[in-house]
Amino acid sequence: MGPEEFRAAGHELIDWIADYRARIPQLPVQAQVKPGEVAGKLPDQAPEQAEPFGQVLADLERVVAPGVTQVQHPRYFGWFPANASLASVLGDLAAGGLGALGITWQSAPALTEVEEVVVEWLRELTALPATWKGVIQDTASTACLVALLAARERATDYSEVRGGLQAEDTPLTVYTTEHAHSSVLKAVALAGFGRDNLRLIEVNPVTYAMRPEALAAAIEADVAAGRKPAAVVVNVGTTGTTAVDPLAEIGPLARRYGMWVHVDAAMAGSALLLPEMRWLIDGVEDADSLNWNPHKWLGTLGDCSLLYVADPAHLIRVMSTNPSYLRSAVDGEVTQYKDWGIPLGRRFRALKLWFQLRLDGVEAIRARLRRDLDNARWLAGQVEAAPGWRVLAPVVLQTVVLRHEPAGLDADGLNAHTLAWADAVNTSGAALVTPTLLDGVWSVRVSIGAENTERSDVEHLWRLLQHAAEAAEAG
Amino acid sequence: MGPEEFRAAGHELIDWIADYRARIPQLPVQAQVKPGEVAGKLPDQAPEQAEPFGQVLADLERVVAPGVTQVQHPRYFGWFPANASLASVLGDLAAGGLGALGITWQSAPALTEVEEVVVEWLRELTALPATWKGVIQDTASTACLVALLAARERATDYSEVRGGLQAEDTPLTVYTTEHAHSSVLKAVALAGFGRDNLRLIEVNPVTYAMRPEALAAAIEADVAAGRKPAAVVVNVGTTGTTAVDPLAEIGPLARRYGMWVHVDAAMAGSALLLPEMRWLIDGVEDADSLNWNPHKWLGTLGDCSLLYVADPAHLIRVMSTNPSYLRSAVDGEVTQYKDWGIPLGRRFRALKLWFQLRLDGVEAIRARLRRDLDNARWLAGQVEAAPGWRVLAPVVLQTVVLRHEPAGLDADGLNAHTLAWADAVNTSGAALVTPTLLDGVWSVRVSIGAENTERSDVEHLWRLLQHAAEAAEAG
Repeated sequence: MGPEEFRAAGHELIDWIADYRARIPQLPVQAQVKPGEVAGKLPDQAPEQAEPFGQVLADLERVVAPGVTQVQHPRYFGWFPANASLASVLGDLAAGGLGALGITWQSAPALTEVEEVVVEWLRELTALPATWKGVIQDTASTACLVALLAARERATDYSEVRGGLQAEDTPLTVYTTEHAHSSVLKAVALAGFGRDNLRLIEVNPVTYAMRPEALAAAIEADVAAGRKPAAVVVNVGTTGTTAVDPLAEIGPLARRYGMWVHVDAAMAGSALLLPEMRWLIDGVEDADSLNWNPHKWLGTLGDCSLLYVADPAHLIRVMSTNPSYLRSAVDGEVTQYKDWGIPLGRRFRALKLWFQLRLDGVEAIRARLRRDLDNARWLAGQVEAAPGWRVLAPVVLQTVVLRHEPAGLDADGLNAHTLAWADAVNTSGAALVTPTLLDGVWSVRVSIGAENTERSDVEHLWRLLQHAAEAAEAG
Repeated sequence: MGPEEFRAAGHELIDWIADYRARIPQLPVQAQVKPGEVAGKLPDQAPEQAEPFGQVLADLERVVAPGVTQVQHPRYFGWFPANASLASVLGDLAAGGLGALGITWQSAPALTEVEEVVVEWLRELTALPATWKGVIQDTASTACLVALLAARERATDYSEVRGGLQAEDTPLTVYTTEHAHSSVLKAVALAGFGRDNLRLIEVNPVTYAMRPEALAAAIEADVAAGRKPAAVVVNVGTTGTTAVDPLAEIGPLARRYGMWVHVDAAMAGSALLLPEMRWLIDGVEDADSLNWNPHKWLGTLGDCSLLYVADPAHLIRVMSTNPSYLRSAVDGEVTQYKDWGIPLGRRFRALKLWFQLRLDGVEAIRARLRRDLDNARWLAGQVEAAPGWRVLAPVVLQTVVLRHEPAGLDADGLNAHTLAWADAVNTSGAALVTPTLLDGVWSVRVSIGAENTERSDVEHLWRLLQHAAEAAEAG
């Protein structure tokens, strides 16, 4: 495809996207397709001959779009917000159009330097320590793995250049809570620590936040048993209830044992743009790394996950490579982001953030975040005031965990009731919420923060939840 | 930004990209900026107020574009091809416009199912075993790490659910050659094996391919010493010289020891679309995994790396998570790609491939690959016939490794001469080539395969190389 065909097709596609985004409020939130339905509409083989653009666009409309759950919908309250702001879509298009190769500074100096500038903009906006440095990763899963690999290597005095983790005599241990995101457990497994060396520290039964005294006891027991505490993952805004582990108490404790402190603020990080929310990471100056996802609430098209570190030298020592074919005369003067993460080749992700911050402006983004916090507080108030309904965890951010608890149901009956009304809401396509287990019982998460969700949408949802619960109760 | 603002700005940006791509042949290939120059043109802080789109577009033109090395240029012969075909740029734009959340099948059924269809299209096009399954990863670096993690876990009977790699008594060993990509060494380090347990097997001094008898000897020595061979990374198309390790001999040998065989065909994989090139992976049915990058020679906008595995159950067992908030009623019937790699959240990368294959057609892609192979053979013939010039490795694919060797230079003098003329070519902006160390001596890689590189561009390059070498010799 040459530039002129691209121009013609590109204009068509831009119009399609603008029209599509405009009609999202009329679409069902949850995709109404069955397993295999999308694949069944596609041919078994790639075409030998080029097809006209109109045919591909028609299939995008007919086959693909109905197979997408509408997380941009104003009544999407599932998982966590997954905004893909149109300003950031343009930034991503600019990146594709440039077609830059992000392997070294030399291969695309602007790719590295715009990233350096934009992550520094966001460091300042979130009031992280001025000496910290940032890098864009794909997801929080990868960022956590990178942090734990750095922790592992620091704790073993960089065993990777010798016999590796497998040659170490002293077992390393890692600490978090059972409310940590599943990717934390996965990162612990992938980094080779093993489940037996992962401690899920007791939480406060009301706030679901890590109890520092339980952490201290676990660390002391491991040290007494000849193990070496290597890292603690501090959850700032858990997936289940947005619980906030007390970083200010955990940091100094971990530091005493030379442990790596990684802060998983994947969801909550966006809130740090608001000065009144910065208490979330009180004590961050004692941490080694912090990760958050602009591709959630902030609204940057995914994938876009920010990893900040107190000292990038640890990452570089663990991750760097220096083959002859990647060397250049300026290597000593520039940042080589390939040495700050797993992949060599990196996309020009900074453009998504650069476009979004400039085209939307920080003031408007802050106002949107505050709107969502207000809406969550409003919903929690309604739920608390409604007979038979309960809010199950403190509403710290924009997520409300709730349950309808009709009288006379046993534990199994309550679970069945909860899953029934949540499923009724979701399959209706009118809104999407996420069932989750809390203390072993099903509850429902309402996570507010789609870019177009206004108070009226939350009011609409609250009516839907009440009707669905009443209908389920009536059987 | 709402849909109508997006529409207006999107049309402007599409036009900018079309114009930009059309003028690439007039731009210098290597970016002519100094370290810090791009960053120095950007403000220190994010804007509080939204800026007009025209201002952002003007900065894209003024600040960003000059800071990009033009790997889409017809005289880009550096590193490896890094095509970003305009059809795939449109597919990526469609993905951004859809704004789908790729965490589970349920969150975006089409994201999973289009990926399943497209990787199966490409499996058939590359004649991989019919039972193999594919998944899109970001890069070959990550794909190799994923393969080595699966190898590690299979070799330890899934130690991750017990004490981890650190609790294993028998050291695991990994085998490849010194010509493996730097990311292989990095993956070995990150997976915790340690450098001491990585064996760089001797290569054939002419072809730079692994010597199977040397591999056998190394394996036997490790087994005799009480170590456990866990994996071999077979290089099909090395970065230095596109050397091809003999998979048909390595596979059965590795299988005898229960080792994981990972084939790194990051560059060469595109060639498998040509039936006459499938000898590259003769014996692949004995391998466990194979990775190649459509984001290189095939021309799909990065990042887009295909990992095929003989049995995805190994990946799933190592990588799967199952938190309550991600469960759905159809989980047993669908593919959950989150369990086939590191990240939970995945972009809709399949659309890039889907658009490209459909809009360009496979026939035209094959013709382009054959054109590049012809051009490489032509260049090698010219070099071999020119006095004082030498081709240093078999031209198996589209890369020619060459040197100008004037009489009377010692080793240091020859290195200085090579780096001087290559640097002269690169800094001129007229073309880009990559110096590389081969047998400890600097040589120059000419890697052909930019989408718009025609024979006339290769002829032009050959004149440039000769003039630069003559000028350097004249001093």
